[in-house]
Amino acid sequence: MDIAFLLYDNMTSLDFIGPYQVLGLLPKVRLHLAAVEAGPIRTDLGVKLHADKRLEEVTRADIVVVPGSPDPSKTMADPRVQAWLRALDATSTWTTSVCTGSLILGAAGLLQGKRATTHWIAMDALRTFGATPVAERVVFDGKTVSAAGVSAGIDMALALAGKAVGPMVAQCIQLGIEYDPEPPYNAGSLKVAPPEVIEASRAMLSSVMPG
Amino acid sequence: MDIAFLLYDNMTSLDFIGPYQVLGLLPKVRLHLAAVEAGPIRTDLGVKLHADKRLEEVTRADIVVVPGSPDPSKTMADPRVQAWLRALDATSTWTTSVCTGSLILGAAGLLQGKRATTHWIAMDALRTFGATPVAERVVFDGKTVSAAGVSAGIDMALALAGKAVGPMVAQCIQLGIEYDPEPPYNAGSLKVAPPEVIEASRAMLSSVMPG
Repeated sequence: MDIAFLLYDNMTSLDFIGPYQVLGLLPKVRLHLAAVEAGPIRTDLGVKLHADKRLEEVTRADIVVVPGSPDPSKTMADPRVQAWLRALDATSTWTTSVCTGSLILGAAGLLQGKRATTHWIAMDALRTFGATPVAERVVFDGKTVSAAGVSAGIDMALALAGKAVGPMVAQCIQLGIEYDPEPPYNAGSLKVAPPEVIEASRAMLSSVMPG
Repeated sequence: MDIAFLLYDNMTSLDFIGPYQVLGLLPKVRLHLAAVEAGPIRTDLGVKLHADKRLEEVTRADIVVVPGSPDPSKTMADPRVQAWLRALDATSTWTTSVCTGSLILGAAGLLQGKRATTHWIAMDALRTFGATPVAERVVFDGKTVSAAGVSAGIDMALALAGKAVGPMVAQCIQLGIEYDPEPPYNAGSLKVAPPEVIEASRAMLSSVMPG
Protein backbone atom coordinates (compact mmCIF):
# COMPACT_ATOMS: atom_id res chain seq x y z
CA MET A 1 0.00 0.00 0.00
CA ASP A 2 1.26 3.46 -0.93
CA ILE A 3 0.53 6.39 1.37
CA ALA A 4 1.40 9.94 0.34
CA PHE A 5 1.71 12.79 2.83
CA LEU A 6 1.79 16.39 1.65
CA LEU A 7 4.47 18.37 3.48
CA TYR A 8 4.73 22.15 3.29
CA ASP A 9 6.17 25.11 5.09
CA ASN A 10 4.39 26.17 8.32
CA MET A 11 2.40 22.94 8.53
CA THR A 12 1.49 21.61 11.98
CA SER A 13 3.80 18.73 12.86
CA LEU A 14 1.27 16.67 14.87
CA ASP A 15 -1.28 16.86 12.02
CA PHE A 16 1.21 14.84 10.02
CA ILE A 17 2.96 12.71 12.64
CA GLY A 18 -0.31 11.46 14.21
CA PRO A 19 -1.54 9.68 11.06
CA TYR A 20 2.03 8.85 10.04
CA GLN A 21 2.68 6.94 13.28
CA VAL A 22 -0.54 4.96 12.78
CA LEU A 23 -0.60 4.32 9.04
CA GLY A 24 3.15 3.73 8.98
CA LEU A 25 2.55 0.57 11.02
CA LEU A 26 0.27 -0.99 8.41
CA PRO A 27 1.72 -4.13 6.81
CA LYS A 28 3.67 -3.73 3.55
CA VAL A 29 3.28 0.02 3.47
CA ARG A 30 5.34 2.49 1.47
CA LEU A 31 5.34 6.02 2.89
CA HIS A 32 5.93 8.96 0.56
CA LEU A 33 6.67 12.36 2.09
CA ALA A 34 6.14 14.78 -0.76
CA ALA A 35 6.60 18.53 -1.02
CA VAL A 36 6.90 21.12 -3.77
CA GLU A 37 10.64 20.92 -3.16
CA ALA A 38 12.27 17.94 -1.46
CA GLY A 39 14.35 18.73 1.61
CA PRO A 40 13.75 20.31 5.02
CA ILE A 41 10.27 21.66 5.77
CA ARG A 42 9.89 24.08 8.67
CA THR A 43 6.76 23.32 10.70
CA ASP A 44 4.69 25.89 12.60
CA LEU A 45 6.51 25.53 15.92
CA GLY A 46 9.91 25.30 14.27
CA VAL A 47 10.93 21.66 14.05
CA LYS A 48 12.13 20.76 10.57
CA LEU A 49 10.91 17.59 8.88
CA HIS A 50 12.46 16.17 5.77
CA ALA A 51 10.42 15.74 2.58
CA ASP A 52 11.85 12.80 0.63
CA LYS A 53 10.30 13.56 -2.73
CA ARG A 54 9.09 16.32 -4.99
CA LEU A 55 5.37 16.22 -5.77
CA GLU A 56 6.07 15.08 -9.36
CA GLU A 57 7.83 11.98 -8.03
CA VAL A 58 4.63 10.69 -6.40
CA THR A 59 2.05 9.99 -9.09
CA ARG A 60 -0.35 7.73 -7.23
CA ALA A 61 -1.23 6.60 -3.72
CA ASP A 62 -3.83 4.44 -2.05
CA ILE A 63 -4.16 6.96 0.76
CA VAL A 64 -3.37 10.69 0.52
CA VAL A 65 -3.00 12.67 3.75
CA VAL A 66 -3.02 16.47 3.85
CA PRO A 67 -2.07 17.99 7.22
CA GLY A 68 -3.16 21.45 8.30
CA SER A 69 -1.46 24.66 9.35
CA PRO A 70 -2.30 27.77 11.37
CA ASP A 71 -2.22 29.49 7.97
CA PRO A 72 -2.52 27.16 4.98
CA SER A 73 -3.36 29.99 2.54
CA LYS A 74 -0.10 29.87 0.59
CA THR A 75 -0.38 26.12 0.06
CA MET A 76 -4.10 26.42 -0.79
CA ALA A 77 -3.23 28.89 -3.55
CA ASP A 78 -0.36 26.90 -5.03
CA PRO A 79 -1.42 25.52 -8.46
CA ARG A 80 1.22 22.76 -8.24
CA VAL A 81 -0.32 21.49 -5.00
CA GLN A 82 -3.84 21.76 -6.40
CA ALA A 83 -2.93 19.84 -9.57
CA TRP A 84 -1.09 17.17 -7.58
CA LEU A 85 -4.00 16.62 -5.20
CA ARG A 86 -6.49 16.40 -8.06
CA ALA A 87 -4.30 13.91 -9.90
CA LEU A 88 -3.79 11.68 -6.86
CA ASP A 89 -7.44 11.90 -5.86
CA ALA A 90 -8.44 10.55 -9.28
CA THR A 91 -7.04 7.11 -8.41
CA SER A 92 -6.74 7.09 -4.59
CA THR A 93 -8.79 4.82 -2.39
CA TRP A 94 -8.93 7.50 0.31
CA THR A 95 -8.18 11.20 0.11
CA THR A 96 -7.85 12.61 3.60
CA SER A 97 -7.08 15.72 5.61
CA VAL A 98 -6.34 16.72 9.18
CA CYS A 99 -7.27 20.10 10.68
CA THR A 100 -7.11 22.92 8.10
CA GLY A 101 -5.72 20.43 5.59
CA SER A 102 -9.35 20.19 4.46
CA LEU A 103 -9.15 23.80 3.26
CA ILE A 104 -6.28 22.72 1.01
CA LEU A 105 -8.43 19.87 -0.35
CA GLY A 106 -11.23 22.40 -0.77
CA ALA A 107 -9.04 24.85 -2.66
CA ALA A 108 -8.15 22.01 -5.03
CA GLY A 109 -11.86 21.53 -5.71
CA LEU A 110 -12.09 18.20 -3.94
CA LEU A 111 -14.77 19.02 -1.34
CA GLN A 112 -17.50 20.26 -3.70
CA GLY A 113 -20.83 18.93 -2.43
CA LYS A 114 -19.18 16.90 0.33
CA ARG A 115 -19.54 16.75 4.09
CA ALA A 116 -16.27 17.62 5.77
CA THR A 117 -14.68 18.86 8.96
CA THR A 118 -11.66 20.92 9.97
CA HIS A 119 -10.29 22.74 13.03
CA TRP A 120 -13.22 24.37 14.87
CA ILE A 121 -11.80 27.85 14.34
CA ALA A 122 -11.92 27.39 10.54
CA MET A 123 -15.23 25.54 10.23
CA ASP A 124 -17.10 28.24 8.31
CA ALA A 125 -14.35 28.49 5.70
CA LEU A 126 -15.37 25.05 4.38
CA ARG A 127 -18.49 26.57 2.80
CA THR A 128 -16.27 28.62 0.47
CA PHE A 129 -15.39 25.36 -1.26
CA GLY A 130 -18.93 24.02 -1.57
CA ALA A 131 -18.55 21.70 1.39
CA THR A 132 -21.01 21.17 4.23
CA PRO A 133 -19.21 21.69 7.56
CA VAL A 134 -19.80 18.88 10.06
CA ALA A 135 -18.72 19.31 13.67
CA GLU A 136 -17.58 15.73 14.15
CA ARG A 137 -14.15 14.41 14.96
CA VAL A 138 -13.79 12.31 11.81
CA VAL A 139 -16.04 12.69 8.77
CA PHE A 140 -16.27 10.09 5.99
CA ASP A 141 -18.00 11.13 2.76
CA GLY A 142 -17.34 8.43 0.19
CA LYS A 143 -13.59 8.27 -0.32
CA THR A 144 -13.05 11.70 1.19
CA VAL A 145 -12.17 11.69 4.87
CA SER A 146 -11.48 14.68 7.07
CA ALA A 147 -10.46 15.00 10.70
CA ALA A 148 -11.01 17.86 13.13
CA GLY A 149 -8.10 19.83 14.62
CA VAL A 150 -4.54 18.54 15.01
CA SER A 151 -4.85 15.52 17.35
CA ALA A 152 -7.93 14.18 15.50
CA GLY A 153 -5.64 12.78 12.82
CA ILE A 154 -4.82 9.89 15.15
CA ASP A 155 -8.48 8.86 15.42
CA MET A 156 -8.92 9.26 11.67
CA ALA A 157 -5.90 7.12 10.88
CA LEU A 158 -7.04 4.32 13.18
CA ALA A 159 -10.47 4.35 11.53
CA LEU A 160 -8.80 4.27 8.11
CA ALA A 161 -6.51 1.44 9.18
CA GLY A 162 -9.58 -0.55 10.16
CA LYS A 163 -11.23 0.04 6.81
CA ALA A 164 -8.04 -0.59 4.85
CA VAL A 165 -6.89 -3.84 6.48
CA GLY A 166 -9.49 -4.75 9.09
CA PRO A 167 -10.11 -4.12 12.78
CA MET A 168 -7.60 -6.69 14.06
CA VAL A 169 -4.58 -4.88 12.64
CA ALA A 170 -6.04 -1.47 13.52
CA GLN A 171 -6.46 -2.56 17.14
CA CYS A 172 -2.91 -3.94 17.23
CA ILE A 173 -1.66 -0.56 16.04
CA GLN A 174 -3.77 1.19 18.66
CA LEU A 175 -2.29 -1.01 21.38
CA GLY A 176 1.16 -0.57 19.85
CA ILE A 177 0.95 3.22 20.24
CA GLU A 178 -0.89 2.70 23.54
CA TYR A 179 -3.71 5.00 22.48
CA ASP A 180 -5.98 4.84 25.52
CA PRO A 181 -6.29 8.59 26.03
CA GLU A 182 -6.70 10.17 29.45
CA PRO A 183 -6.71 13.93 28.87
CA PRO A 184 -6.20 15.68 32.22
CA TYR A 185 -8.93 18.21 31.37
CA ASN A 186 -12.24 18.04 29.55
CA ALA A 187 -11.59 20.94 27.20
CA GLY A 188 -10.77 19.41 23.84
CA SER A 189 -13.74 20.53 21.75
CA LEU A 190 -16.32 23.29 21.56
CA LYS A 191 -18.86 20.80 22.86
CA VAL A 192 -17.12 20.27 26.19
CA ALA A 193 -14.70 23.13 26.88
CA PRO A 194 -15.63 25.72 29.52
CA PRO A 195 -16.88 29.00 27.94
CA GLU A 196 -13.92 31.04 29.23
CA VAL A 197 -11.50 28.55 27.64
CA ILE A 198 -13.33 28.80 24.32
CA GLU A 199 -13.28 32.60 24.47
CA ALA A 200 -9.57 32.78 25.28
CA SER A 201 -8.69 30.19 22.63
CA ARG A 202 -10.73 31.95 19.98
CA ALA A 203 -9.00 35.26 20.71
CA MET A 204 -5.58 33.57 20.56
CA LEU A 205 -6.24 31.60 17.40
CA SER A 206 -8.08 34.29 15.44
CA SER A 207 -4.82 36.19 15.14
CA VAL A 208 -3.13 33.29 13.37
CA MET A 209 -5.85 31.31 11.60
CA PRO A 210 -7.01 32.17 8.10
CA GLY A 211 -10.35 33.59 7.15
CA MET B 1 10.76 28.69 29.88
CA ASP B 2 13.35 26.41 28.29
CA ILE B 3 12.33 22.95 27.15
CA ALA B 4 14.90 20.45 25.93
CA PHE B 5 13.99 17.41 23.82
CA LEU B 6 16.48 14.59 23.33
CA LEU B 7 16.55 13.46 19.71
CA TYR B 8 18.31 10.30 18.58
CA ASP B 9 18.40 7.80 15.77
CA ASN B 10 15.49 5.31 15.61
CA MET B 11 13.38 7.30 18.08
CA THR B 12 9.59 7.20 17.68
CA SER B 13 8.42 10.42 16.07
CA LEU B 14 5.07 10.68 17.89
CA ASP B 15 6.78 10.23 21.28
CA PHE B 16 8.49 13.53 20.56
CA ILE B 17 5.95 15.42 18.46
CA GLY B 18 3.05 14.81 20.90
CA PRO B 19 4.65 16.68 23.82
CA TYR B 20 6.33 19.12 21.41
CA GLN B 21 2.99 20.21 19.94
CA VAL B 22 1.59 20.79 23.44
CA LEU B 23 4.55 22.30 25.30
CA GLY B 24 5.54 24.35 22.26
CA LEU B 25 2.34 26.34 22.70
CA LEU B 26 3.24 27.48 26.23
CA PRO B 27 3.82 31.22 26.49
CA LYS B 28 7.39 32.51 26.15
CA VAL B 29 8.83 29.09 25.52
CA ARG B 30 12.19 28.27 24.01
CA LEU B 31 12.40 24.81 22.45
CA HIS B 32 15.74 23.06 22.19
CA LEU B 33 16.04 19.97 20.00
CA ALA B 34 19.28 18.38 21.07
CA ALA B 35 21.15 15.34 19.81
CA VAL B 36 24.65 13.90 20.09
CA GLU B 37 25.23 15.43 16.66
CA ALA B 38 23.09 18.27 15.29
CA GLY B 39 21.42 17.58 11.94
CA PRO B 40 18.94 15.08 10.56
CA ILE B 41 17.75 12.30 12.86
CA ARG B 42 16.10 9.26 11.29
CA THR B 43 13.06 8.15 13.28
CA ASP B 44 11.79 4.57 13.56
CA LEU B 45 9.38 4.74 10.62
CA GLY B 46 11.78 6.73 8.48
CA VAL B 47 10.84 10.40 8.63
CA LYS B 48 13.85 12.57 9.39
CA LEU B 49 13.63 15.31 12.00
CA HIS B 50 16.23 18.00 12.40
CA ALA B 51 18.16 18.38 15.67
CA ASP B 52 19.12 22.05 16.07
CA LYS B 53 21.80 21.62 18.68
CA ARG B 54 24.47 19.31 19.99
CA LEU B 55 23.93 18.12 23.56
CA GLU B 56 26.77 20.35 24.83
CA GLU B 57 24.93 23.42 23.56
CA VAL B 58 22.01 22.84 25.93
CA THR B 59 23.25 23.13 29.50
CA ARG B 60 19.98 23.66 31.36
CA ALA B 61 16.21 23.39 30.84
CA ASP B 62 13.09 23.80 32.92
CA ILE B 63 11.60 20.71 31.30
CA VAL B 64 13.54 17.84 29.76
CA VAL B 65 11.66 15.39 27.50
CA VAL B 66 13.09 12.02 26.48
CA PRO B 67 11.11 10.19 23.78
CA GLY B 68 11.22 6.42 23.32
CA SER B 69 12.15 4.03 20.58
CA PRO B 70 11.39 0.42 19.60
CA ASP B 71 15.03 -0.15 20.58
CA PRO B 72 16.57 2.55 22.76
CA SER B 73 19.54 0.36 23.80
CA LYS B 74 22.21 2.29 21.90
CA THR B 75 21.06 5.60 23.37
CA MET B 76 20.74 4.07 26.84
CA ALA B 77 24.37 2.97 26.66
CA ASP B 78 25.77 6.26 25.36
CA PRO B 79 27.82 7.93 28.12
CA ARG B 80 27.36 11.36 26.49
CA VAL B 81 23.57 11.01 26.73
CA GLN B 82 23.78 9.73 30.30
CA ALA B 83 26.01 12.61 31.42
CA TRP B 84 23.81 15.18 29.67
CA LEU B 85 20.62 13.87 31.27
CA ARG B 86 22.21 13.80 34.72
CA ALA B 87 23.49 17.36 34.29
CA LEU B 88 20.13 18.71 33.11
CA ASP B 89 18.21 16.81 35.76
CA ALA B 90 20.29 18.47 38.46
CA THR B 91 18.61 21.82 37.77
CA SER B 92 15.42 20.96 35.86
CA THR B 93 11.96 21.57 37.24
CA TRP B 94 10.67 18.45 35.47
CA THR B 95 12.57 15.56 33.94
CA THR B 96 10.24 13.54 31.75
CA SER B 97 10.01 10.59 29.39
CA VAL B 98 7.57 9.08 26.92
CA CYS B 99 7.34 5.35 26.18
CA THR B 100 10.74 3.61 26.44
CA GLY B 101 12.33 7.01 27.00
CA SER B 102 12.05 6.05 30.67
CA LEU B 103 14.59 3.29 30.08
CA ILE B 104 17.01 5.98 28.90
CA LEU B 105 16.36 7.96 32.09
CA GLY B 106 16.84 4.73 34.01
CA ALA B 107 20.15 3.96 32.33
CA ALA B 108 21.31 7.43 33.33
CA GLY B 109 20.54 6.52 36.96
CA LEU B 110 17.62 8.91 37.24
CA LEU B 111 14.88 6.43 38.21
CA GLN B 112 16.52 4.87 41.25
CA GLY B 113 13.83 4.36 43.91
CA LYS B 114 11.20 6.08 41.81
CA ARG B 115 7.77 5.10 40.51
CA ALA B 116 7.72 5.20 36.72
CA THR B 117 5.96 3.91 33.64
CA THR B 118 6.88 3.03 30.06
CA HIS B 119 5.42 1.20 27.07
CA TRP B 120 3.58 -1.88 28.34
CA ILE B 121 5.88 -4.22 26.44
CA ALA B 122 8.90 -2.87 28.34
CA MET B 123 7.39 -2.51 31.80
CA ASP B 124 9.52 -5.13 33.55
CA ALA B 125 12.73 -3.55 32.26
CA LEU B 126 12.17 -0.60 34.61
CA ARG B 127 13.14 -2.78 37.59
CA THR B 128 16.67 -3.08 36.19
CA PHE B 129 17.13 0.59 37.04
CA GLY B 130 15.75 0.45 40.55
CA ALA B 131 12.38 1.84 39.55
CA THR B 132 8.96 0.59 40.56
CA PRO B 133 6.87 -0.02 37.40
CA VAL B 134 3.42 1.54 37.55
CA ALA B 135 0.82 0.65 34.92
CA GLU B 136 -0.66 4.12 34.68
CA ARG B 137 -0.79 6.48 31.69
CA VAL B 138 1.20 9.27 33.34
CA VAL B 139 3.24 8.83 36.49
CA PHE B 140 4.52 11.74 38.59
CA ASP B 141 7.17 11.00 41.22
CA GLY B 142 8.49 14.29 42.50
CA LYS B 143 10.06 16.07 39.54
CA THR B 144 10.31 12.88 37.51
CA VAL B 145 7.43 12.29 35.15
CA SER B 146 6.94 9.36 32.81
CA ALA B 147 4.28 8.53 30.24
CA ALA B 148 3.15 5.16 28.90
CA GLY B 149 3.60 4.21 25.23
CA VAL B 150 3.86 6.69 22.34
CA SER B 151 0.55 8.61 22.37
CA ALA B 152 0.63 9.01 26.18
CA GLY B 153 3.09 11.86 25.76
CA ILE B 154 0.19 14.12 24.79
CA ASP B 155 -1.62 13.49 28.08
CA MET B 156 1.63 13.93 30.00
CA ALA B 157 2.41 17.22 28.31
CA LEU B 158 -1.05 18.63 29.02
CA ALA B 159 -0.72 17.66 32.68
CA LEU B 160 2.73 19.29 32.78
CA ALA B 161 1.41 22.42 31.08
CA GLY B 162 -1.23 22.66 33.81
CA LYS B 163 1.37 22.36 36.55
CA ALA B 164 3.81 24.72 34.84
CA VAL B 165 1.47 27.60 33.99
CA GLY B 166 -1.97 26.68 35.30
CA PRO B 167 -5.08 24.91 34.06
CA MET B 168 -6.41 27.85 32.01
CA VAL B 169 -3.50 27.84 29.56
CA ALA B 170 -3.37 24.04 29.53
CA GLN B 171 -7.04 23.86 28.59
CA CYS B 172 -6.55 26.48 25.85
CA ILE B 173 -3.77 24.33 24.42
CA GLN B 174 -6.00 21.25 24.63
CA LEU B 175 -8.74 23.07 22.73
CA GLY B 176 -6.15 24.47 20.32
CA ILE B 177 -5.04 20.97 19.35
CA GLU B 178 -8.66 19.81 19.62
CA TYR B 179 -7.73 16.95 21.90
CA ASP B 180 -11.11 15.37 22.57
CA PRO B 181 -10.14 11.83 21.62
CA GLU B 182 -12.57 9.37 20.06
CA PRO B 183 -10.57 6.22 19.33
CA PRO B 184 -12.59 4.01 16.99
CA TYR B 185 -11.70 0.92 19.03
CA ASN B 186 -11.26 0.21 22.71
CA ALA B 187 -7.89 -1.45 22.42
CA GLY B 188 -5.35 1.11 23.60
CA SER B 189 -4.05 -0.52 26.77
CA LEU B 190 -3.58 -3.92 28.35
CA LYS B 191 -6.53 -3.11 30.63
CA VAL B 192 -9.04 -2.81 27.80
CA ALA B 193 -7.72 -4.54 24.66
CA PRO B 194 -9.23 -7.89 23.64
CA PRO B 195 -6.95 -10.85 24.54
CA GLU B 196 -6.31 -11.77 20.89
CA VAL B 197 -5.16 -8.20 20.17
CA ILE B 198 -2.79 -8.29 23.13
CA GLU B 199 -1.39 -11.63 22.02
CA ALA B 200 -0.85 -10.51 18.43
CA SER B 201 0.70 -7.20 19.50
CA ARG B 202 3.01 -8.87 21.96
CA ALA B 203 4.26 -11.26 19.30
CA MET B 204 4.79 -8.39 16.85
CA LEU B 205 6.52 -6.07 19.32
CA SER B 206 8.67 -8.66 21.03
CA SER B 207 10.72 -8.95 17.88
CA VAL B 208 11.66 -5.27 17.98
CA MET B 209 11.53 -4.17 21.61
CA PRO B 210 14.51 -4.48 23.95
CA GLY B 211 14.75 -6.72 26.97
